[in-house]
Amino acid sequence: MTEPSKVYLVGAGPGDPDLLTVKAMALIERAEVVVYDRLVSQEILDLIPQGRMRIFVGKASGHHHMPQDEINALLAGLAMKGHTVVRLKGGDPFVFGRGGEEALHLSKSAIPFEVVPGITASNGISAALGVPLTHRGLATGVRFITGHCRSGTDLDLDWKGLADPDTTLVFYMAKANLDQIVKNLTDEGLAPSTPALAVSKGTTVKQRHCLSTLADLRNMIEALAFEAPMLIMIGKVVSLAAELNGQGKIDEGNAFDGVEKKAAQA
Amino acid sequence: MTEPSKVYLVGAGPGDPDLLTVKAMALIERAEVVVYDRLVSQEILDLIPQGRMRIFVGKASGHHHMPQDEINALLAGLAMKGHTVVRLKGGDPFVFGRGGEEALHLSKSAIPFEVVPGITASNGISAALGVPLTHRGLATGVRFITGHCRSGTDLDLDWKGLADPDTTLVFYMAKANLDQIVKNLTDEGLAPSTPALAVSKGTTVKQRHCLSTLADLRNMIEALAFEAPMLIMIGKVVSLAAELNGQGKIDEGNAFDGVEKKAAQA
Repeated sequence: MTEPSKVYLVGAGPGDPDLLTVKAMALIERAEVVVYDRLVSQEILDLIPQGRMRIFVGKASGHHHMPQDEINALLAGLAMKGHTVVRLKGGDPFVFGRGGEEALHLSKSAIPFEVVPGITASNGISAALGVPLTHRGLATGVRFITGHCRSGTDLDLDWKGLADPDTTLVFYMAKANLDQIVKNLTDEGLAPSTPALAVSKGTTVKQRHCLSTLADLRNMIEALAFEAPMLIMIGKVVSLAAELNGQGKIDEGNAFDGVEKKAAQA
Repeated sequence: MTEPSKVYLVGAGPGDPDLLTVKAMALIERAEVVVYDRLVSQEILDLIPQGRMRIFVGKASGHHHMPQDEINALLAGLAMKGHTVVRLKGGDPFVFGRGGEEALHLSKSAIPFEVVPGITASNGISAALGVPLTHRGLATGVRFITGHCRSGTDLDLDWKGLADPDTTLVFYMAKANLDQIVKNLTDEGLAPSTPALAVSKGTTVKQRHCLSTLADLRNMIEALAFEAPMLIMIGKVVSLAAELNGQGKIDEGNAFDGVEKKAAQA
């Protein structure tokens, strides 16, 4: 019987290949099989050497992606055949990436694995757009929250605890439930004037973003027809983007005038 | 007059050089001057080519480090002289790294800068020790909080909001105020049996960690004489480390028996 190979659960970061870790880059170049989904950017897929097996396990629509237990079984099956597998995930495997579920399955199947962290979208976007996630006097901490839930159900979150003006809030996959997010936070006392930032396809060549306020966010995103994946940052730190976004150049526009701005070039 | 050079505010990640981004690695190799503090690991400093200027701006004791405004002025001064500067920071510059303060100073001084994100300690340790920061059924989100405050003052945090059993809590720089953290969380209703993990010098060759519970954490850390920097993770996801820590091998020990375990080898 073949000894099972190792499965690497690898964070691909937010999209820009330069934001891969050195380790992730080496593993992509070495893997016999790469299993990936729609959150991994084309620029990163282009790094996979010619002739290697690559398996796509997600569709853009979100309706026809491979169920998680089939992905788990696929990874285990490839390793049992002796292939060195890189399972590439957008961002970090352990932040809204279901990496824990895949790791548990591999562990139970006695297949060796290793988790390689990646730059999660919050950090990538924070650096690209000049929004420190924490900042003395503005935010003592940051929260990453999923804006996604089963369709037809409400987001089940502690909204009172979330409506804290001293904490930066980052909602991942925030598009579908944006109305709920804004309403619940304002109902619990977070000021409608709290600065807010929406980013579509962050740190990829298709990145778009807008600076707004909690109250105006919904209208702006609709007007600009932002596509998923979309991430929302809410908090006083967002007000710094107007100054820090231009990479050293003072931004000439009014950050809160509703005009979409081009992503800062890396 | 010389045109000012660019200052790169670069996240050095949690310690392991393989967890640098590709971009950070290239910048370290290219920089004319590297300005760094005590949270950047020796393994990463060893990557700076011979003969380049390197400036240390922090002392291990924490009492005699260079004040932030002097660091700001140093970075601006070096850029004004035409040096390409890499300001290396442990983890991510915008997560408890004061990167925002340095960026604002550079912006006001009309010096071009760019922020390069890094793997923050939470993500590095999460991957190394098998603790997903989010996991279906265990945690809908994660919070990064600073455990540090001016000496002699209490941590001014919304403890009621923090005592949420469905959110993973990660306290950075948690050593000095651990008593307060544990007491306030339990007073607000977080179960004393909540799994908790302490990590000293995470993802470096000196990494040490222990798995415990909220109630027992303090005694274990004292018994093991853990050194700063120390990070604490609290939440149901920590219970997965017992299975995921061995990178595919089921852990043979009892994760909650108070025995320190060797860090998983990368």
